[in-house]
Amino acid sequence: MHLEKINSPEDVKKLSLAEMIQLSSEIRQVLLKKLSEHGGHIGPNLGIVELTVALHYVFNSPKDKIVYDVSHQSYIHKMLTGRKDSFINSEKYDEVSGYSNPEESKHDFFNIGHTSTSISLACGLAKARDLKDENDNVIAIIGDGSLSGGEAYEGLNNAAETGRNMIIVVNDNDMSIAENYGGLYKNLKELRDTEGRCECNFFKAMGLDYYYVKDGHDFEQLISVFKKVKDTEHPVVVHVHTVKGKGLEFAEKNKEQWHWGMPFVLETGESKFPMGDEEDYGNLTGQYLLDAMKKDPKVVAITSGTPAVFGFWPDRRKEAGRQFVDVGIAEEHAVALASGIAANGGNPVYGVYSTFLQRTYDQLSQDLCINNNPAVLLVYLASVYGMNDVTHLGLFDIAMMGNIPNMVYLAPTCKEEYFAMLEWGINQKDHPVAIRVPAMGVIESGVEDTTDYSILNKYQMSKKGKDVAVIALGDFYQLGEEVVETIAKEKGIEATLINPKFITGLDEEMLESLKENHELVITLEDGILEGGFGEKIASYYGLADMKVKNYGIGKSFQDRYIPEKLLKENGISLEQIMYDIMKVIK
Amino acid sequence: MHLEKINSPEDVKKLSLAEMIQLSSEIRQVLLKKLSEHGGHIGPNLGIVELTVALHYVFNSPKDKIVYDVSHQSYIHKMLTGRKDSFINSEKYDEVSGYSNPEESKHDFFNIGHTSTSISLACGLAKARDLKDENDNVIAIIGDGSLSGGEAYEGLNNAAETGRNMIIVVNDNDMSIAENYGGLYKNLKELRDTEGRCECNFFKAMGLDYYYVKDGHDFEQLISVFKKVKDTEHPVVVHVHTVKGKGLEFAEKNKEQWHWGMPFVLETGESKFPMGDEEDYGNLTGQYLLDAMKKDPKVVAITSGTPAVFGFWPDRRKEAGRQFVDVGIAEEHAVALASGIAANGGNPVYGVYSTFLQRTYDQLSQDLCINNNPAVLLVYLASVYGMNDVTHLGLFDIAMMGNIPNMVYLAPTCKEEYFAMLEWGINQKDHPVAIRVPAMGVIESGVEDTTDYSILNKYQMSKKGKDVAVIALGDFYQLGEEVVETIAKEKGIEATLINPKFITGLDEEMLESLKENHELVITLEDGILEGGFGEKIASYYGLADMKVKNYGIGKSFQDRYIPEKLLKENGISLEQIMYDIMKVIK
Repeated sequence: MHLEKINSPEDVKKLSLAEMIQLSSEIRQVLLKKLSEHGGHIGPNLGIVELTVALHYVFNSPKDKIVYDVSHQSYIHKMLTGRKDSFINSEKYDEVSGYSNPEESKHDFFNIGHTSTSISLACGLAKARDLKDENDNVIAIIGDGSLSGGEAYEGLNNAAETGRNMIIVVNDNDMSIAENYGGLYKNLKELRDTEGRCECNFFKAMGLDYYYVKDGHDFEQLISVFKKVKDTEHPVVVHVHTVKGKGLEFAEKNKEQWHWGMPFVLETGESKFPMGDEEDYGNLTGQYLLDAMKKDPKVVAITSGTPAVFGFWPDRRKEAGRQFVDVGIAEEHAVALASGIAANGGNPVYGVYSTFLQRTYDQLSQDLCINNNPAVLLVYLASVYGMNDVTHLGLFDIAMMGNIPNMVYLAPTCKEEYFAMLEWGINQKDHPVAIRVPAMGVIESGVEDTTDYSILNKYQMSKKGKDVAVIALGDFYQLGEEVVETIAKEKGIEATLINPKFITGLDEEMLESLKENHELVITLEDGILEGGFGEKIASYYGLADMKVKNYGIGKSFQDRYIPEKLLKENGISLEQIMYDIMKVIK
Repeated sequence: MHLEKINSPEDVKKLSLAEMIQLSSEIRQVLLKKLSEHGGHIGPNLGIVELTVALHYVFNSPKDKIVYDVSHQSYIHKMLTGRKDSFINSEKYDEVSGYSNPEESKHDFFNIGHTSTSISLACGLAKARDLKDENDNVIAIIGDGSLSGGEAYEGLNNAAETGRNMIIVVNDNDMSIAENYGGLYKNLKELRDTEGRCECNFFKAMGLDYYYVKDGHDFEQLISVFKKVKDTEHPVVVHVHTVKGKGLEFAEKNKEQWHWGMPFVLETGESKFPMGDEEDYGNLTGQYLLDAMKKDPKVVAITSGTPAVFGFWPDRRKEAGRQFVDVGIAEEHAVALASGIAANGGNPVYGVYSTFLQRTYDQLSQDLCINNNPAVLLVYLASVYGMNDVTHLGLFDIAMMGNIPNMVYLAPTCKEEYFAMLEWGINQKDHPVAIRVPAMGVIESGVEDTTDYSILNKYQMSKKGKDVAVIALGDFYQLGEEVVETIAKEKGIEATLINPKFITGLDEEMLESLKENHELVITLEDGILEGGFGEKIASYYGLADMKVKNYGIGKSFQDRYIPEKLLKENGISLEQIMYDIMKVIK
């Protein structure tokens, strides 16, 4: 196998054209074996095999610096830069992350996982190079899907200005995670249709030089253009047409489904972990919203390139028609759009992952909350049980958006509450409302939720007790229940259990009432403690005799952690909490 | 005067061409009188007089909905929509805000103050209109300077996709606040030079229809094009060439200086509040950085369109040469660029207003802090004494960025500390460092700061006392000193005074030591309390016998507030703090 002899990009340079073709075939086999056993990003990597090999053939990494956008397509780069064993040898699969990672290799320059950042980061590398009077090539690889993000555009605009070496490779497979949306994509299509010759050219309009590669899986075309632009003294775009999922029939046909996947049977494409019949909040939400749309033509669901997050599979998108909007990967626009829709009497619901909502702090604050418009946001995987890559953590949303005035951020603890909150959120006209969708499965309480959520910041006392009050937020409510039950059973202490429901405000009346016969309040939250929910309770009781203990994850960027272990390290376990309580109560 | 008879846009429609020209002349006179007496945005409003009159002549506001980007150029719109008295009558000057404001008028749809949001918000208005099967025109007015922001691009991309009525008026005066930067501006120039005829057209490349207006001060041209696009069934861009500062000689000549201004002498342009000889941190920082650049070619200052914030006037920018970068209004890119520069060995310093840094939460977290790159950020007007418009508050930065792991956010209390921190920040290679530049004037302690800031989260005990400890952050350190002095003098209590210096971490050793002989800790911070600095101290002492009281501004969007009043309302006054302390200490 050629791949086994590739220990660094130097070894790629020694290959003949025929050997490179052979190497690409081996890479695909290795990739598919690992992906079918381990899961990961399938389409993006299959589509960039030849492009990556050709880059390493022409350029001199790491002197020449390659930055991959999102970097979920950097698997081949990893194979060619000393990390092939983590793809060939199943025991070493987990030795590499799913994204570029400077701790793994000097050929990686950044931990990256959010889209649209590569050009800006590459501009930085290039600027430092220029200040040092060095002369290496700086290369950003960005997919067409990532081009819809505002940061990519800001980067293009500045790259053109610098006037020095910078090579922006646009890996155009005519797909985002789902389909592409936006006026830009008409221009990319026209460029593909005319083989880069049409006069009206987005990249040239941005002040950049431009090359087109018709077949991004043809080494001669790739190498020829890369050689032309190598050591360029001005910024250029190399627009390469590739096929997402290239070489795997299912993936080429059904690109959205095969963007990322769990382990699968290589021969049939069947998932090894088929979705059971169990409910999940994404699917339930999609169905709920579709029903709501039929009743009210002003209900509109918004996604920023990830429709599946709230169950908008292709058939549901079709059924929703003009009541569903995919803005492309453009979270900032999604929030401002929702605010504008709400300002004009519509009922927008934006479904988004916690980690990607981070892109919108200012839009949440300025476009939405200052204007106090009644848009609804559904925040997914905001939990220690969410994605566990350092670039995809869902632990920061409470501190990020929970301190913005006017925002009503709700934390349901069960299915009944979730839908009661969603129903209220869509139909009220007074506040921006966000809901932290539980990430630990769909739990039914069996009790209808008749709460009037227009009475803000009213906590629910689920069990009235004394001595200790457990305020257990959202996903951690069940842990709170467990604490209260155990302490009753084991210690005979009838503690109070509180379901706060509102992340963004204190129920001062209830907190005040606890002073009567409680000595200790503990707070439980499924996120980073700093800037979060519990600290506000501690501050509230600052001058009182009440003792307060806040539980949550300490401020840190965790990478590929094990949830139970992380929780334990942060003192979040039934045993530890019991121990802590008994130390105070005695 | 025609203006006196304009009570609504209906009255504009009755005017003849000659009368509109006369009205424009009157508007300029009224504007200049108010601006010279009151201050405000000068160039942007002088440049958009005819455009605004023409819009209201052709379209039917508020049925047709006009959204102004940034909205600092909405003064004429306000005059024509029932608010003329607030420009004519000096007693009513303060009855209107400097930005669009739905509480003032049904002709305004959003509170806006940050750039690049108009197209996205207008997309929302248009989408709701379509869901309701209504048919009014939706119009976004955006300046060329605002086009460099990513949110504007995301909006353009989505506007094209919608395929329905949307009119985007690009008010191109070939200026941002300072000069424009970026590849896009070459295309805008080419469009102006060819009167909109060049084939390669940014807006067309974004999938939008396009019209050009050569002279944006000529009513016949404006009205003719607006009539053409009125009731369009697809999105169009109307690219209008205007002159910033039109009609005021100084402002036309020196566009950067006359973008915004304090009251001035109308005849000479002389400021009525000339800058004295007193030092300010902007000017001092510019000079410091220029000196640092001479010693180290890798030091580079970055601005996102507001170079004056850290003293980079035109002559300093020229002197800095390639060691100064203006990325245009593109805060996201600025942070990612700084991270990239730092990753490749450069020493970037990004100077930015607290309010605009909000645009970068995700870049701070992902592009910068996950990668732990040693860029330096200088955060200006992060204070209750900063800008007091609701859209420009500098009170949220601690909650916004202070909870991001790896970030070292420093709060100097005097000039000596500020420069020691800056010096350390630029020369260290271990952390992203941000400095909260004091906003209450330059205070010299007279004591050299020899702190080793590489020892993180080490607070300084300025005075060792007992009973009460005052932890006074940054700008509020002097208030802390005053409290400690007064309580000694009036009550004979020798309190402890602590200058924490580090916003982003606790000095647990020092906090622990206070338990020995202190009963009360108070924290003082110049910003929103929720998610901020003090709550962490309260949480730290949650299980201890220590009483804690946090002082700061309660979570709220304040508009055009009086700092002293706001502080008092939040219990931040020497008297109130003394009273609170004595209640605990007794």
